[in-house]
Amino acid sequence: MLEITKLTYAQALDQQDELASFRDRFIIDDPDLIYLDGNSLGRLPGKTAGQIQQTVETLWGARLIRGWSEGWMALQEQIGGKIARLVGAQADEVAIADSTSVNLYKLALAALTARPDRHKIITDDLNFPSDVYVLQGAAKLAGRPCQIQVIPSPDGIHAPVDGLRAAIDDDTALVSLSHTAFKSSYTYDMTAITALAHDAGALILWDLSHSAGAVPCPLNAAQVDLAVGCTYKYLNGGPGAPAFLYVRRDLQELLHNPISGWMGQKDMFNFDLTYTPAPGLRRFFTGTPPILSVSAIEAGVDLLLEAGLDRLRAKSVQQTEYFIELWEELLASLGFTLNSPREANLRGSHISLGHPDGWRIDQALIHEMKVLPDFRKPDNIRFGITPLYTSFTDIYTAVERLHTVVVERLYEKYSLKDSLIT
Amino acid sequence: MLEITKLTYAQALDQQDELASFRDRFIIDDPDLIYLDGNSLGRLPGKTAGQIQQTVETLWGARLIRGWSEGWMALQEQIGGKIARLVGAQADEVAIADSTSVNLYKLALAALTARPDRHKIITDDLNFPSDVYVLQGAAKLAGRPCQIQVIPSPDGIHAPVDGLRAAIDDDTALVSLSHTAFKSSYTYDMTAITALAHDAGALILWDLSHSAGAVPCPLNAAQVDLAVGCTYKYLNGGPGAPAFLYVRRDLQELLHNPISGWMGQKDMFNFDLTYTPAPGLRRFFTGTPPILSVSAIEAGVDLLLEAGLDRLRAKSVQQTEYFIELWEELLASLGFTLNSPREANLRGSHISLGHPDGWRIDQALIHEMKVLPDFRKPDNIRFGITPLYTSFTDIYTAVERLHTVVVERLYEKYSLKDSLIT
Repeated sequence: MLEITKLTYAQALDQQDELASFRDRFIIDDPDLIYLDGNSLGRLPGKTAGQIQQTVETLWGARLIRGWSEGWMALQEQIGGKIARLVGAQADEVAIADSTSVNLYKLALAALTARPDRHKIITDDLNFPSDVYVLQGAAKLAGRPCQIQVIPSPDGIHAPVDGLRAAIDDDTALVSLSHTAFKSSYTYDMTAITALAHDAGALILWDLSHSAGAVPCPLNAAQVDLAVGCTYKYLNGGPGAPAFLYVRRDLQELLHNPISGWMGQKDMFNFDLTYTPAPGLRRFFTGTPPILSVSAIEAGVDLLLEAGLDRLRAKSVQQTEYFIELWEELLASLGFTLNSPREANLRGSHISLGHPDGWRIDQALIHEMKVLPDFRKPDNIRFGITPLYTSFTDIYTAVERLHTVVVERLYEKYSLKDSLIT
Repeated sequence: MLEITKLTYAQALDQQDELASFRDRFIIDDPDLIYLDGNSLGRLPGKTAGQIQQTVETLWGARLIRGWSEGWMALQEQIGGKIARLVGAQADEVAIADSTSVNLYKLALAALTARPDRHKIITDDLNFPSDVYVLQGAAKLAGRPCQIQVIPSPDGIHAPVDGLRAAIDDDTALVSLSHTAFKSSYTYDMTAITALAHDAGALILWDLSHSAGAVPCPLNAAQVDLAVGCTYKYLNGGPGAPAFLYVRRDLQELLHNPISGWMGQKDMFNFDLTYTPAPGLRRFFTGTPPILSVSAIEAGVDLLLEAGLDRLRAKSVQQTEYFIELWEELLASLGFTLNSPREANLRGSHISLGHPDGWRIDQALIHEMKVLPDFRKPDNIRFGITPLYTSFTDIYTAVERLHTVVVERLYEKYSLKDSLIT
């Protein structure tokens, strides 16, 4: 039997991996670079490079303004309809628009307006700080005093499910949470928490940024009201690619977009001077979308659909489990703590490890070892596993290099002065 | 002396045009196509195609997440600083962010919050309907009843300056206008109208979408408070390219961005759970910007800076004047009306012509004659003149083809059934 701490074990797992060939569908210019930050910026799909060139040279360059009627105007819904299949929704419930923050703002304010007699917004401290900022801004504009309760996680890793149960009440207008936590990787039971909110008469808004394309999201099955998410992480849409939003079909015409832009107007080219929202999801559009960035999203989504989310999730679980087993064997004794849930069903597709010298180790990994993870203050190294292109050998090599950095004390030349920590 | 209605006259003007060579800096795949819609979507600069390819393949593909620290994070301010030179502002007063509609929303709501005891927003009916929609949405969130007064133009062409003077009073929180009107091309005296607003204690917000890169905008000299604008028109930034915003330096830290996203947070990577706005203009940033579309803006702006706005404006005035003279000679007798100001100093860089058969003529121009103008209901054909790449021969040829369409009744095969007019 192969030993888990040997390279041959990883190679055998790669041999058995039926998704292994998808790695060849991405541009990988330096095979020695171990990229474990695809949950911050997904890699470039080979097809995307050609797609962008076509949008630029054939459409913008030659078709000019005609590009809008020949395809661009439909892109937000067309790509949204594909993302819908990755998050358990109908095609007419998901569209590309704006950034995640702007979408969160629109939907949070729409929800607060739809529950005018309630005063509480509930979130947790595992949520993106950026989402909490946006909720703070939206709360100020609700037209009544609204309070945001940030329920603390019991251990910084697991969600405060009991705390949420205690806090969500009949004064709660909105529950807004990250489905998978950006730092610990904790993944909520979307169905159970959505039911908690609904039982209290509140609306729920999920941020799927660290789930979409990696962790199944049963939006329809859980009767979720609202959701937003990134396209530049597991969806491989490119740096800062526009975000998606989801509004359950029966809510679309009951809610109001506070940013009443012309792309959400009923008849855009009628040039009426009074805003009349478009039917359906379009009313949550705002201004003209950035087409080069929008058109770059589609090919990456197509790859995920081709691979299939069930297979991707199975590989992701196998890979994060493998990573944790290697941590137990090789890293735990060196002072690394597991800052992600040990339970596979409570975990997304990244693993966080803590270490007192976390920042310096992260720097040594990047600059000495050609491993690219991510770092989150104060001591947390985050390893993103993207099953479309992360191999078991990548994971093995990353852990082995991490081990070397600590055992050979390669991190000592990096000082905290270089740190973002102030 | 050459006759103005002859091709040789146009050719002579092109010979004398010191900006003529800039046309070669754009991708023009079909020299027979007369493109007069650069005020809707500017042409593709040759350098931009290479710039995008580099962003995609070299940065995203190979540098991956490192692209953010190696340039992307600075792009919004870097390109904004260049646009500042085209609109009469300081480099730290202009940045790329979001869409024009989202920027207008942020700044309008910031202005309403800064004038809490006032209840009126003043605009006119020459403004983009989309701007009026956004103002309507912002007004609802001001926390007090706010009214929007849309002052009507006396003739649909010129601005209602007297009407504005009468309407702007000490209950006016905000005056929001398009500097150059999207349909008639009327261009406001920015200094005079800004003074009107300031004399009444109101803030002013200009939409520069149809001015930036074509018509000088004295933002600093006129002491303008706030401005927004497109980058995909005269700035040649590409389809739906993100917009710019301007906030006068001394107002930046007095105003509040309602969409308090993480890009506007004081320390983005400190992950505090309380929003603290960044110093300066950054507080008006929201979410992660779409980098492919943002990076595509710069080369087009560089071309405008190289040509110089004074020279561009001089050529634009000469070209619109030439167009109008050709209209007088060749088109007025065929039923075309001039729907733009006859006075050069009151006019932007496009010309609108009306005709009872306007829609059908527009269709014939596009499909029979390879002339691409734009159309605005009910009868208005809009000809955009972009002095960086529009030649005098383009203008001559367009008028000559327009003349042919009417004289030979080529438009009769097009029916109103094909129309957007419902």
